[in-house]
Amino acid sequence: MSENYFLSRKSCRNFKDEKISEKEIENIVTQASKAPTCGNMQLYSVIVTEDKDKKKALANYHFNQPAAVTAPIILTICADFNRFNRWCKINEADAGYDNFHSFIVSMTDAIIFAQQLMTIAELQGYGTCYLGTVNYNAKEISELLKLPELVIPVASLAIGLPAIKGEETHRLPIKGILHKEFYVELTDSEIKEIFKIHDENPDNKKFLEETGKDNLAQVFAEIRYPKDLNEKVSESFYNLLKEKGF
Amino acid sequence: MSENYFLSRKSCRNFKDEKISEKEIENIVTQASKAPTCGNMQLYSVIVTEDKDKKKALANYHFNQPAAVTAPIILTICADFNRFNRWCKINEADAGYDNFHSFIVSMTDAIIFAQQLMTIAELQGYGTCYLGTVNYNAKEISELLKLPELVIPVASLAIGLPAIKGEETHRLPIKGILHKEFYVELTDSEIKEIFKIHDENPDNKKFLEETGKDNLAQVFAEIRYPKDLNEKVSESFYNLLKEKGF
Repeated sequence: MSENYFLSRKSCRNFKDEKISEKEIENIVTQASKAPTCGNMQLYSVIVTEDKDKKKALANYHFNQPAAVTAPIILTICADFNRFNRWCKINEADAGYDNFHSFIVSMTDAIIFAQQLMTIAELQGYGTCYLGTVNYNAKEISELLKLPELVIPVASLAIGLPAIKGEETHRLPIKGILHKEFYVELTDSEIKEIFKIHDENPDNKKFLEETGKDNLAQVFAEIRYPKDLNEKVSESFYNLLKEKGF
Repeated sequence: MSENYFLSRKSCRNFKDEKISEKEIENIVTQASKAPTCGNMQLYSVIVTEDKDKKKALANYHFNQPAAVTAPIILTICADFNRFNRWCKINEADAGYDNFHSFIVSMTDAIIFAQQLMTIAELQGYGTCYLGTVNYNAKEISELLKLPELVIPVASLAIGLPAIKGEETHRLPIKGILHKEFYVELTDSEIKEIFKIHDENPDNKKFLEETGKDNLAQVFAEIRYPKDLNEKVSESFYNLLKEKGF
C-alpha cells in the first residue's frame, strides 16, 4: 500500500465544501508531532484557518489560487523559536536564538513537520496542496495570524476532501537528482534530455501559446518566477526575519 | 498500519553493518521524488555517501555521532537551483535565482523531499536519523561532496538496518503547537506546564548532573545550542549561501 501511495500521490487543487472536524485535525497534528525535530525542541507551530472571513483574507494573500479558495481549511506552518525561547527565559537560561542559524533550524523543523502532516492527511483520504506563495506575502500573513517574535510562516497547506482528482505528476528521471559519492554536473545534452519530460508534456505546451515564449524554460524564468519578483520577495522575507528577531 | 507507524516512529542511532543496495536506494529516491515540489521544479539533489573513507570524513563533519559512524550510508540532501538554472540558460531564458528567496524555495523543496524519503525508508523497515549538524560544517561538507554553484546541503540522513531500537519520543502536548485562527501566546505557567514532559523525563535529568546546570532549559540554551555557536554558524552558513551564488 505504502509503495503505491507514494508513487501515485498527487496534490489536490479542488476541494469539496465539507468541513474537517477539530478532532480530526488534532488527530493528524498529534501524529505529525512525532516527526523528527532538532534536539526534540519542536521548533514549529501550526495555525488553522477555518473562519470564512479569515480564510478569504488568507486566500487573497495566496493570490486566490483555487486550492486556497476551495479548501475548507488552510494550515499555516511556522518556524517557531518563540515558545522554546520563552521556556528558556522562564528558566533563567541565557538563550541566543536571535540569529539566522536559529531561523534555518526552526524552518527545517517546520517543513519536516508539514510534510509529515501532509502524508498522514493524504493517507487518511484527504487531499492537500502546498501553497508555494507563503513567502510572497509572509509579512501580511504574519499580521493576519498575529504571529509574534521568532515566528515565521514557512509552509501553507490547503486541506480537505478532494472534489477533483489531482493531475498525474511527471518528475525528472532520478539520474538528474541522485549523485553517488560526489556531485557530478550533468552535461548540457544530459540536462536537455532529462527535462524532455516537461518540454514534451502537452499541458506545458499550452503555456507557450499563452505566453508567446519560445520554450518552457523561458516561461518559468521570465513569467512564473522572474528575477525581479524573486529579488523583491528576497528583500521582504529577509526583512521579516529581522523584524521578528532572527 | 499508517496510524500506528506515525505515532510510534523513532529515529535510529545505531545501525547494523549491512549495506543497502543501489537498487533499493534508487527505489526509495524514485518514490520520494513524487513528493510535492514548487512549480514541479524539483529544486533538490541527493548525494549518497557509501565509500568507507568518504563516509569517515563526512561522519567527522557530523562530529562522529553514533548514527553517522554506524550507518552504512549517509544521504546529504541539498537545496539545488543549479540544475534548473542550467536548463534555463541552455534555453536562453533570463534566469534570476541568485537571491535569498530562491534559496528558501529550494531549501523547502529539499526538506519536503528528505522527509518523504525518510518516511518511505522507515516504512520499508530501515532506520533513519537526521544529522542536525549539517549546517555546522556546511562549507566543509560542500567541499567534500564537490557541490557546485547554487547547491547547499540542508539535510543529512543516516540510513540503514537498525541494530538497536530507537528510544520512545516524548513530545509536547499539541496544545503547545496548535493554534486556532490566530497565534495565541501561552502564559508562563502554561509554558511550564507543557514542558514538564521534558523536565520530568529521567533521561533528561541526567544532563543536569553531568553539566551542573539548574534546569534543562539552561542545558539547551547554554551548553547544547549556545548563543555564540548559533552566531558562528549563522555567519558561516550565510557566507556559504553568498559564496554559492544565492
